[in-house]
Amino acid sequence: MSTFEIEHQIYEGKAKKIFATNDDFKVVMEFKNDLTAFNALKKGQFEGKGELNCEISTLIFKEIAKHKISLHWIETFEKNKMLVQKTEIIPLEVVVRNRIAGSLAKKFKMPEGEVLKLALLEFYYKNDELQDPFVSDDQIIAFGWSTAADLAIVKKITLQINEILKDIFKKCGLSLVDFKIEFGKLPSGEIILADEISPDSMRLWDSVTNEKMDKDRFRFDLGDVKTGYQTILNKLKEVLS
Amino acid sequence: MSTFEIEHQIYEGKAKKIFATNDDFKVVMEFKNDLTAFNALKKGQFEGKGELNCEISTLIFKEIAKHKISLHWIETFEKNKMLVQKTEIIPLEVVVRNRIAGSLAKKFKMPEGEVLKLALLEFYYKNDELQDPFVSDDQIIAFGWSTAADLAIVKKITLQINEILKDIFKKCGLSLVDFKIEFGKLPSGEIILADEISPDSMRLWDSVTNEKMDKDRFRFDLGDVKTGYQTILNKLKEVLS
Repeated sequence: MSTFEIEHQIYEGKAKKIFATNDDFKVVMEFKNDLTAFNALKKGQFEGKGELNCEISTLIFKEIAKHKISLHWIETFEKNKMLVQKTEIIPLEVVVRNRIAGSLAKKFKMPEGEVLKLALLEFYYKNDELQDPFVSDDQIIAFGWSTAADLAIVKKITLQINEILKDIFKKCGLSLVDFKIEFGKLPSGEIILADEISPDSMRLWDSVTNEKMDKDRFRFDLGDVKTGYQTILNKLKEVLS
Repeated sequence: MSTFEIEHQIYEGKAKKIFATNDDFKVVMEFKNDLTAFNALKKGQFEGKGELNCEISTLIFKEIAKHKISLHWIETFEKNKMLVQKTEIIPLEVVVRNRIAGSLAKKFKMPEGEVLKLALLEFYYKNDELQDPFVSDDQIIAFGWSTAADLAIVKKITLQINEILKDIFKKCGLSLVDFKIEFGKLPSGEIILADEISPDSMRLWDSVTNEKMDKDRFRFDLGDVKTGYQTILNKLKEVLS
């Protein structure tokens, strides 16, 4: 356990707060109980959500670290708080799709659930005012949101993470439909996994019944949200213990 | 001049009709006087538009052919009719942007007119029901709208065409802001330039005054549309004679 002191809040997003610490290279990430969907048009929350997501993210980060992938997570020191490396966030939501669902199904009027032959990577430009538009590799490079070299690294790590996650959730009896991750860049230039990996940013369906266990329960009022998140955590704990 | 007979109409789009001929490998493309914009929400037409676009396309196709780029155009045998090779159209609108304008400016709230350091290529999936959505290379390949190999060829030819067009229009005193082209595939597998290249599918601004000479005059009621198209044709004739 490292020693550090939490200082002022430097950022508050929809689901997390970031605090400075007395170490210039480390910040604290606090998981909030708030839930938002549809570009924050739908809002909600439930008691314990922050803790559930923090614990789920922690378990997943520990697994990813075993595969020699660098990540911002250093330690989880409170139920809803992580100490993480401070990074310059690459302003892209990196989405991996193993099956068709969500905005992809809507955009192309395709049925939900169809399995893609290969994982499909998509990038969305992180910009609230523009509502996180879908962007192409060429746009990312043209507008300087990332370089071609960094983007190639991001893609490679993302596909590795997809394999790790698919494997973990398969053991849990859950199908990893899609997920969103973000990356940061250290002053050294190293690109590392940032943000969180939780049911807020994944679609996880029961492998047998196709029951949705993730934030879609909140988006579409499909059942008790906390039960879904708690089920995911319980299964992860069984499989990863 | 080849000998052929025009047979039944096989397709009617917003701005063109396609007719079969007695040659299985050739079709006739007729340029209509109709103009549409904003996914056909705005409709109009003007007398002589079909002929203007046909003549402009013809002049441009002839120039492109000089650079050993294969194209569907065989000959223009009437003022508004071309004989072209029959191809299987790749269902992509290939857009090249040299300056920021139109939907790109709107999507990213960027000012119109800014010059891009490198030409930006974009792909839109040709599908009226879906309103021609913007798509990424990975989506194109995942959903089989093209192969990675064909897409690489399309990109290469498109950038070559951009250089040719920029050069022609520079001599005309016009700035080639952006344009849209389409490609077809022959039974042999060869990829060739299809469709048209006209003020319906380009943005051309006067190099000095920035006056818009293209379909934006119709889209945004900026001035007599025919005068814009006629000016483009007159300048092309001067430069290419």
